[in-house]
Amino acid sequence: MEHFDRLSELLMQTNKLSVELFSKVAEQYGISHAEIFLLQQIKKSPKTIGELSRLSGFPYSTISGVVSRLEAGGYVVRQKDQQDRRVVWVRLADDVEQLERRLPFLGKTYVHELFAGMTKEEVEKLCDSFRLVNSYLLKKLEEQGERERK
Amino acid sequence: MEHFDRLSELLMQTNKLSVELFSKVAEQYGISHAEIFLLQQIKKSPKTIGELSRLSGFPYSTISGVVSRLEAGGYVVRQKDQQDRRVVWVRLADDVEQLERRLPFLGKTYVHELFAGMTKEEVEKLCDSFRLVNSYLLKKLEEQGERERK
Repeated sequence: MEHFDRLSELLMQTNKLSVELFSKVAEQYGISHAEIFLLQQIKKSPKTIGELSRLSGFPYSTISGVVSRLEAGGYVVRQKDQQDRRVVWVRLADDVEQLERRLPFLGKTYVHELFAGMTKEEVEKLCDSFRLVNSYLLKKLEEQGERERK
Repeated sequence: MEHFDRLSELLMQTNKLSVELFSKVAEQYGISHAEIFLLQQIKKSPKTIGELSRLSGFPYSTISGVVSRLEAGGYVVRQKDQQDRRVVWVRLADDVEQLERRLPFLGKTYVHELFAGMTKEEVEKLCDSFRLVNSYLLKKLEEQGERERK
C-alpha cells in the first residue's frame, strides 16, 4: 500500500499548491475566493441564491452579500423569476468569453500558460493520468448515487 | 496546442467531479462545504477568525457562525490568545487522527478507497504525473512571489 501513500501525499500537495496559487492570482485581480466560487457555480447556468447557499454551506445573507459585490464589479446580475417574483436568479452579466477575458485564470488558456514548456509527450501522459483519475471519480460518484437511492 | 486543450478539458472535468463527489460524501456526514474548508485551513496549525476570513473572502461574522457550528459539533475549540485577549484562535478539538476517524474522507486512507482496484503500475504512473504537475505549480508560485516582491 506504500505506493498509495505516496500518491496520497502527492495529491494533498497538488491540492495545497493549487489553492495557494489560485488565491494569489485571484488577489492580483482583486477578487476573493468566495466570489470565484460563485462565478464558477453560475458559469454554466444561472442559480438562485438559495441554491448557491446550499452548494456552499453559507447562509443566504452571506451569499447575498457576495452576489452584491460581484454585481458592483459588473460580473453578475440579479434577475427576478418570470413565474415567481420572489425567486431571484443570479446570472453572468456578460458571456463566459467576456468573463474569461477579465479573469484569464478562469479560462482554459490558463492551462497553456501554467504548463508552458511541457513537451507534447508529457502533456499526453498527463491526459492519460487524468482520464484514469476521472474514470475512478465517476465510478465513485455513481456508487454514491446508488447508495442514496437505497 | 490541441493537446493542451485536451488537458484543459480533462482538468476541468477532474475539478468538477471531485467537488461533486466531495460535496456528496460530506453531506452524508452532515458537514457543509464551508465547514470542511475551515477544518482544512486549521488542520496543520490554528488560525484566527480574521485569518480565516481573509483566506476565504467571507466576512468575519460569517466565519464566526461557521466556527460556532463546528464548535457545537465538537470539531474545534475557540481559544483566547495569551498575550492579546482580543485575539481568538480556532484550533482542532482533538488531534488530526481523531478528526480523520470522524471524517474518513479527509484522511489519506480515502485515496486507497477511492482508487481501489488500480494496479501498482497505474498508481506509479499517477505519481509521476502529479509530481510533474506539482513541479509546475511550484514554479508558478515562485514566479508569482517574485512578481509581488517587485
